[in-house]
Amino acid sequence: MSSRLKGIYSQLKQRRLDGLLVCLPANISYLAEFLSRDSYLLLSEKKSIYFTDSRYTEEAKAFLNSKIRLKECNGSVFKRIAEASLGLGLKRLGFEERYLPFAEFAKIKEYANGRLELIPTHSIIEDKRQVKDSLEIKKLKQATRITSLAFEHIKKFVVPGVKEIEIAAEFERFIRYHGCNASAFDIIVASGPNSSQPHHLSGQRRLRDNEPVLIDLGVDYQGYKSDLTRVLFLGKINFLVRKVYDIVLKAQKLAIKRVRPGAEMAAIDKVAREYIASKGYGRYFTHNLGHGLGLEVHEDPRISGNEASAVKPGMVFTIEPGVYLPARFGIRIEDMILVTSKGCEVLSGAIN
Amino acid sequence: MSSRLKGIYSQLKQRRLDGLLVCLPANISYLAEFLSRDSYLLLSEKKSIYFTDSRYTEEAKAFLNSKIRLKECNGSVFKRIAEASLGLGLKRLGFEERYLPFAEFAKIKEYANGRLELIPTHSIIEDKRQVKDSLEIKKLKQATRITSLAFEHIKKFVVPGVKEIEIAAEFERFIRYHGCNASAFDIIVASGPNSSQPHHLSGQRRLRDNEPVLIDLGVDYQGYKSDLTRVLFLGKINFLVRKVYDIVLKAQKLAIKRVRPGAEMAAIDKVAREYIASKGYGRYFTHNLGHGLGLEVHEDPRISGNEASAVKPGMVFTIEPGVYLPARFGIRIEDMILVTSKGCEVLSGAIN
Repeated sequence: MSSRLKGIYSQLKQRRLDGLLVCLPANISYLAEFLSRDSYLLLSEKKSIYFTDSRYTEEAKAFLNSKIRLKECNGSVFKRIAEASLGLGLKRLGFEERYLPFAEFAKIKEYANGRLELIPTHSIIEDKRQVKDSLEIKKLKQATRITSLAFEHIKKFVVPGVKEIEIAAEFERFIRYHGCNASAFDIIVASGPNSSQPHHLSGQRRLRDNEPVLIDLGVDYQGYKSDLTRVLFLGKINFLVRKVYDIVLKAQKLAIKRVRPGAEMAAIDKVAREYIASKGYGRYFTHNLGHGLGLEVHEDPRISGNEASAVKPGMVFTIEPGVYLPARFGIRIEDMILVTSKGCEVLSGAIN
Repeated sequence: MSSRLKGIYSQLKQRRLDGLLVCLPANISYLAEFLSRDSYLLLSEKKSIYFTDSRYTEEAKAFLNSKIRLKECNGSVFKRIAEASLGLGLKRLGFEERYLPFAEFAKIKEYANGRLELIPTHSIIEDKRQVKDSLEIKKLKQATRITSLAFEHIKKFVVPGVKEIEIAAEFERFIRYHGCNASAFDIIVASGPNSSQPHHLSGQRRLRDNEPVLIDLGVDYQGYKSDLTRVLFLGKINFLVRKVYDIVLKAQKLAIKRVRPGAEMAAIDKVAREYIASKGYGRYFTHNLGHGLGLEVHEDPRISGNEASAVKPGMVFTIEPGVYLPARFGIRIEDMILVTSKGCEVLSGAIN
C-alpha cells in the first residue's frame, strides 16, 4: 500500500518539488492509512513526517503507515514544520493552496526565514484518490450495503404525520447499530414542496398524503462515504410528478449507459442534460450530473459539462440528475457507480 | 439586533479598515442572523453584501438580516468580491487570515489588480461573539435542556453488553425527536480503558461490569451548541476510580466558585490545576480547563493558563477538568457556565 506514497513522490519530482505539506484531513488519511484528526503531513522522498499533538499520539502509534515518522508536537506546529523542512534540506516545498489558511502559510514562511520557497499546488493527492484501490472499493461497497439496509428500515417511517427530522432520527440510530460511526452528511428528508430545494435541511414539517418525499442519505463506513437519493410517494401520485419522475429516471439510465473507461465526463453529463432539455425541463436541472466519492462525500471527479477528462476504471462517482420546480416539488435520483474495466457497476442498484 | 453589525463597523474603523471579508460560517451566521451555508459576507459601513449561489437564494431571501444585501453569484465568487469591493471604493479590506485559504486570498488579490490592499485580521467577530445576547442565551439554555433530557434517556442503555456506538445511536435518535437537527459533534462514549483517551471515538467495544463509562455529548439547537461530560459507573466502583473522580469533581467546584465578572481566566484554570496537582495527578490533566461555546462548539474564550483576560457577563463556557491515566481510565466532568452580572449560573447544573 505504500504505492500511494510512491505515486505522490513521483508527482512531486515531475513538478520539481522537494516536498509537499498536506493539510486536508482526507488527503492525510489517505496517505497515513488511518483516519487522521488534527494533524499535518510533511512529505518528502527522504523522510515523511506526521505531526500531531498528545491527544492523538496513542492512535497514531497504533495505526500510522509505517513508512511515515510520527512527531508529537505540542507547541507551534508551524515552527516544527519549517524546522523539519529545513532540516531535510528542502528548498521548494509545495502546499495545498485550497486548504491551507493564509495565516498558516504566513507563519511557516516566517519561521523558514527566507530559506524555503513555498509553492502553491492543488489536486496532487486528490487526483490520485479519484481511482480507488481494492480495499477502498470494498469499504465503499460495505457503505452502500449498510445504506441499503438503512433505507429499507426508514421506509417504514415514511407515513403521513411523521416529521421529516424523525425519519432522519431513525436513520441516524439504525446505521450506528450496523457498523457505521456516523452519517456522511445531515441527511435530507424533503417532503412536498420542500423537495424543490436541492439542499433542504430536514425539519419539523410533517409528511402528508399524496406528496413526494425526497430522501438523500449516506453513511460513513470506516471513513468511506455513500450518497444516494430516492423519491418515495405517499398516496396518489400526481400526473406531473409522475411525468417528471419518469424523465429524470430515463435521463439517469441514459447517462449510466455511457459510463465506461475512456468516456468523456462532459459527454456523460450532456446525454442526461439534453434528454431533460428535450422534454422541456432543462432550466430546472440546476446542478452537475454527479461527483466522485470516497474519503469525502464530494470529491473529484466532477461529472459536469466542463469536465473534458475521461472516465477510468476504479473511479466511483454518483449519477444524479434532478428537476426542481420552485415551490412545487423536486425529483432527484442518485446512484453510486463503480467504473469497471469494460463498463460500470451500479453499486446501489439493488436499492428501490 | 443590527447592533451586531454596528459593533463590527466600529471595530473596523478603529483598525483603519474600510471593509472586512468574512468567510467563517459561524461568523457569517452571527451577522446574517440565520444559519448560513456556502457563502461569503463583505462588510462595509456603506453597504454589506452576502454572496451565495442559486441553491441557497430562497432561504437567504427569507431569513437574511435586512441590513445586508443579497447577491446571487454562480460564477467566480472571488471575482465578484473584488469587483464589489472596488465598486464600493474600498482601499483597505480586512480578511480572516485563520480561515481564508491561500488560494482564495490569491484570487481576490489578482482580480483586484493592485487596487485593493488585503489586510490579515483575526478575532474581530469572534471577540464580539464571546458575550452572548439574550436570544443566544435562550437558545443555549434550550440546547442544555434537550441535552439533559437526552442524557436521562441514554442512561437506560448504559448496561453491560451494550456497545459504545449503540449509546451514541440512541442519543442521535432522541435529540431529533426533541427539537434538534443534529448533534454538536460525534459524541464520545468511552468505556473502561477507552476513557483514558480524551478524544476517543465511540466504537464497537461493549460495556462491562465494574468499569467507568465516560460520556461527552452535545446538541445543535438552532445553530447553538451544548457540550457536557459525565462519568457513569457500572457495578462496583474501584477505589482509585472513585478517588480520582472526587478529585476532579472538587477541582471543578473550586473553579466554578471563582467564575464572576472580572475574574482572570488564567486564575480560574489555575485553581483547578493546582488542586489536581496537589493530589499528585497534575501531569494527567493534559488540556485546558474550558472553552467558550455558542455557534461553534469550541470558540473563544479559552479558559487556559495563558489567558490573562477577564470574564465578562454574558459569556458562556465549559469548565471541564480531567485526569487521564494512560491505558487505565479517565475522568472528566464538564459543565456549561453562564456568567451573570454578579457570579455565574451552571446551565447544566440539574444534570446528574
